[in-house]
This record gives sequence, structure tokens and C-alpha cells, in this order.
Amino acid sequence: MGQRILITNSPADALQELLAAHNACNVFILADTNTARIAVPRLMAGCPALSGAETIVVSPGDENKNLTALSSVWEALTAGGATRHSVLVNVGGGMVTDLGGFAAATFKRGIGFINVPTTLLGAVDAAVGGKTGINFAGLKNEVGVFRQADAVVLSSVFFDTLPESEFMSGYAEVIKHALIDSSESLSRVLDRDSSGRAGGAMLNLLAESVEVKRRIVAEDPCETGLRKALNLGHTAGHAFEAMAMERNAPVPHGYAVAWGLVVDMVLSHIRLGFPSAVLRQVAGYVCRHYPAPALRCADYPHLLELMRHDKKNRDARHINFTLLKAPGEVLTDIDVPEEDICAALDIFRDLMHI
Amino acid sequence: MGQRILITNSPADALQELLAAHNACNVFILADTNTARIAVPRLMAGCPALSGAETIVVSPGDENKNLTALSSVWEALTAGGATRHSVLVNVGGGMVTDLGGFAAATFKRGIGFINVPTTLLGAVDAAVGGKTGINFAGLKNEVGVFRQADAVVLSSVFFDTLPESEFMSGYAEVIKHALIDSSESLSRVLDRDSSGRAGGAMLNLLAESVEVKRRIVAEDPCETGLRKALNLGHTAGHAFEAMAMERNAPVPHGYAVAWGLVVDMVLSHIRLGFPSAVLRQVAGYVCRHYPAPALRCADYPHLLELMRHDKKNRDARHINFTLLKAPGEVLTDIDVPEEDICAALDIFRDLMHI
Repeated sequence: MGQRILITNSPADALQELLAAHNACNVFILADTNTARIAVPRLMAGCPALSGAETIVVSPGDENKNLTALSSVWEALTAGGATRHSVLVNVGGGMVTDLGGFAAATFKRGIGFINVPTTLLGAVDAAVGGKTGINFAGLKNEVGVFRQADAVVLSSVFFDTLPESEFMSGYAEVIKHALIDSSESLSRVLDRDSSGRAGGAMLNLLAESVEVKRRIVAEDPCETGLRKALNLGHTAGHAFEAMAMERNAPVPHGYAVAWGLVVDMVLSHIRLGFPSAVLRQVAGYVCRHYPAPALRCADYPHLLELMRHDKKNRDARHINFTLLKAPGEVLTDIDVPEEDICAALDIFRDLMHI
Repeated sequence: MGQRILITNSPADALQELLAAHNACNVFILADTNTARIAVPRLMAGCPALSGAETIVVSPGDENKNLTALSSVWEALTAGGATRHSVLVNVGGGMVTDLGGFAAATFKRGIGFINVPTTLLGAVDAAVGGKTGINFAGLKNEVGVFRQADAVVLSSVFFDTLPESEFMSGYAEVIKHALIDSSESLSRVLDRDSSGRAGGAMLNLLAESVEVKRRIVAEDPCETGLRKALNLGHTAGHAFEAMAMERNAPVPHGYAVAWGLVVDMVLSHIRLGFPSAVLRQVAGYVCRHYPAPALRCADYPHLLELMRHDKKNRDARHINFTLLKAPGEVLTDIDVPEEDICAALDIFRDLMHI
């Protein structure tokens, strides 16, 4: 089957339909200790095709997205008698869908897998797009493959139990997709009623957000060009994230992306005339809904250093950004001089009241 | 670059051309302790693009085609600063090209790789076709991916130093390809002058043999149908191989395939009227050039058991074979009753003078 994306607040029914159509020999579920307790029983209760499915459970958290966990998934599949016709259903956040996708893509040279993301970040970022993998030798996603899930079931029903920080972390990617898409999309995203994460309104926003990513990935599955649009906010964002990690005060990925988006909008304004009214709108939203990073002038040289070493830069002398002329008008591979980045960081601190 | 197959007895020149065209950031070589000593220096001497390339060395033998070796290759690539634009040149037999192909296909979600098979078996079997992987949990090729090498350099110059058993093991696959192809091809293969393994005559046979596989794989890269033709000789062959392993008297893979081919020709004669003259020709060649297996009537039930559990059988009640109506006329998914298999084993023993 080709990749199907099912957007529904009846995920168990969707899964039932997919598994019945797939005619799978036997089904396995991958979950972490959290989703095994909450999401998996919820799905199993409404999906007869999952009865008898073995649940493979791994420890949660990005630090467990490693070779040991991968090996344990392969072992469980072997021990459970998985064949080439088996299907793995990944139920969890990005850690579970990245790990499970890689395990499935490599077990007996590839079995089918279905992603059921249970976090907003997982739904808008990891579950769709075909990037699978694990961390290795201290490096994020150092090994993996590009392989689309056979199907993805997107649902906001799982979001009601997410911690607020986890939900807002995912929402930064929703803002990113809206910026890449259009002014209209951006308005809808910044106007979201902050209540009601699990309902239909959120499901509609989710559908719109994932569609942006799906469209870009379909045109550039292996990240050779256009897909760099999705790096918006991530060059500065990764640097914020890495610096926080070095200082033993890690921040959620999405917080760093939200800050990175503001920095990138400032740079977009300086370099490409991105409209200042929209910049203020985005910055205002981020300032109200996200904490501010600890950031002083003295941090700039190290932040620049971290940006220079970002894997997207083939040449260490330039710092390469994905920027916008306006919402919906993305330009990739923009070389930005360091003075402009420092100026942008100053303005960012003003906007965030740091 | 798409997959290129270069057939030449100047492999260093071919590699030079490929690496120059590829514009690789940096090149790594994967070898085992044998090929690191002989083949790699031979290639480096004639290929300036390899100067400065780091050679990653693993222990030889299928028993080392495992997760530990895979992990060590990933580590060496990371430590050596490999990027997405690096290229891995796999120099060795099937163990090296399977392992290196899998490592390259998964490092940073896929870097380029070139196979330079140094054994006949590696050249006609493992190097072309896109099957990569490692053994896991005691099972052969339990994890891996389908991924074609960017290029394959085929050369008979490496064959002069192969032990006779290793060469003849590879030649069984050459016979298999000829049987799949045509009577003419079969005649050329069975008429081979047994001297001169490294020269142009062998290179021509090699080219013809690989072309059969390349054609089939191109039509069915992920083994969903036609590719099963390549299983000729392998259902009985795997059973012979597994039984020898259980008895602590392992036989080279190709010996088992040669025996399996004779069994399959007998079955093809019984079930599909395969010409008995050709059967006698193939059996005669195998009898003259390969040792005979230790095989008694009392072994039949266990051999049948091993065939039933071969992964190609979705249904354990039938034993599924790839057979021939005549050279060049392949039929896959032929269910054969156990009486016929026992009869074929009897005739096989007669033909092999066991």
C-alpha cells in the first residue's frame, strides 16, 4: 500500500480499517512505558485487529532512541515470529515512531509499519516524512533510513494528557508550517483558542499543518532541495538547544524552534524585507506562550560557533539559513553574515523582553 | 548517480573514473583482514582518488557479519568525519559488500557506496541486486535493507588468489544463472576451460552471468515475484547447508547450491519434463567438479523438515520450488509433494555416485 494519512478522532476505527485492508500475517505494537499504559489500551479497546498483537515496550525519551533499543525491537520481532508480511504499529511520540520506523524498515529488509503519533510534535514532525533512525555515538539521528510509514493515523484525542510544555513544543512546528504556507494559515494558527487541545478544532489545525509537510516531502523525499524549507527556525533553534544542553539546562525542542523562528523572522526582515507587522505578531505570540531563553551578549560567539557547525553547512565559513520574504515565500540556502545574526539576536532579546 | 556496473580487468581505473565523477567529499574503504592486505593495496596503487582514504577493517567470515561489526563501521565513519556526501568503497566478498552496503545505506540515512567484489561468489551473487544486511539472533540476513550500490566494479583479476573451494562455490551461482538464462549460456558455462580464472575468458562469463541477475532484479527489486527465479537450487541447497552446519561439518554455500541445482533439475524433469540430456550434463559437471555430500535415506525426513521451514514457504504444509521446463524457462512457486522430493533425492544420490 502507498502511504495513507488518516486524520480522525476515532483512531481505533482508522487502525481497524487499515489493518483489515493490509491483510497482515501478524501485528506488533511498539510503545514506550507511557503510551503502553494509556494510548495502547485505548486503541486496543476499539480495534479488534489488534487483539493478540504483542506490544513491544521501550523506555521513553530521546536518550533511549539508541542501538540497544533498536536491537531489542529486532529481537522481539524475531522472537515473536514476525515475517516479511507482519506490520509494526508505532504508538508514541517521535522517539517511538523514529525507532520503530527504522526497526521495521530494516527487519527482514523491511516490513510494513503504521505510525500513530500520540504527541503534537510527533504528529506534525516525526510521524510523516519518512525520516527514521536512532542516535548513535552521541549524535542525533546519526543512523537511519528514509522510509515512509505505510500509513499514519493522526488524531488529537491523545493530546489531552500531554504536559503543557510538550504540547507547546509541538505547537512551534505548527507555527513553522503556517509560516511556510501562507498568511491565512498563520492567522489561524496564532488565533487558536488555547483551550480544547483534543477536539475537532485542533484536529483541523493538525490536518492543515501536516498537509504543508506532506506536500514538501512528496516533492523532495530525500532532502536534496525544497525540503530545506522545513529547516525554518532550526539553524538558530538547534544552537539554542545545544547551548542549553551544554549548560545542563535542556529545553524542549519546540521551545528552541519557537525562539529560532523569531530570530529567523528578524533575519528575514533584515535580509529580505519580511513584513515587520507579521514579525511582531509572531514574536508577540512566542513571547506570550513560551518562556524566554537565558541569553546574554557574551553568548553570541558560542551561538555562532554552534550554527557554523550545524550539519546543513557544507562550508564552515558561511552560516546558511532558510528565510522568508513573506509568509508562504520561502528561500533556502541564504548565506547570512555574522553581523546580521548578532543584530538579529539583539532584536530577538528586545522582542522577548530579555 | 544511478547504479552502474563496470566490467573490467582494470578495476583501479574504473574506480578512479567513478570517484572522480562522484565528486565525493571524502572516501572510505571497507575491507576484511584478507582484502585489506591484497586487494586494497592493488586498488590504491592505481587509483589516485583513493589516496588519503581511510580503510575500515573488519574480521572476515559470515560469522562476523553481525551487529558488532556494523556498529564498528558506523563508529569509524563518524570518527572519520564522514558526511552525507562521503562514499564507502566495499572491497571484499559477500560478507563485506552486505555489511558495508547496509552500513552505508543507514549512515546519516544513506551515503553512497561502491562494491568491488573480490570473490566470484561476491561478484555474481552479493554485489549486485541491492540486498544488504547482517545476521542477527542466529538468523542469516535477519536485518538489512534493499539498496542498490551506486556502482559495482566487476573484475576477474582478484580471482587468481582464491582457494579452489571458494572459486567453485561461486561457480555454482554462475551455473544457476546460465540455467535461468538459456541453453547456449549453459553450454558456455559447462565448457569453461578450468584454467585461467583471472583472465578475459572468465571476465566474459562473469559479465554474462551478472547480466542475468541484473535483468531480473531490475524488474523485481524487492523480491515480490520474478526474483524468485534466483531461488533456483536454493530450497534443497539451503537444507543441505543447514544440515551440514548442524553436524558441525559446514560446507561452502556454493557446494550446497550445486547439489541443490541437481536436485531441482531432477524435480524439474519429474514435474515439468525438463530434458533428461541436460539434466545429465549438469549432474555430470557437478559430480566431476564438486565433492559429494554425506547423504543417506535416513536423512530425508530431516531435510524435508528443513525445506518446509525455509522462509520462502508461507504455508508450512507445502514445499515450494523454483523449477525449469527447460534452460531459460523458469516457473516459480511450484508446490512439490514430498514423495517426489524423496524420489529426486534418490536419483540425485545415483547421479552423484553417493
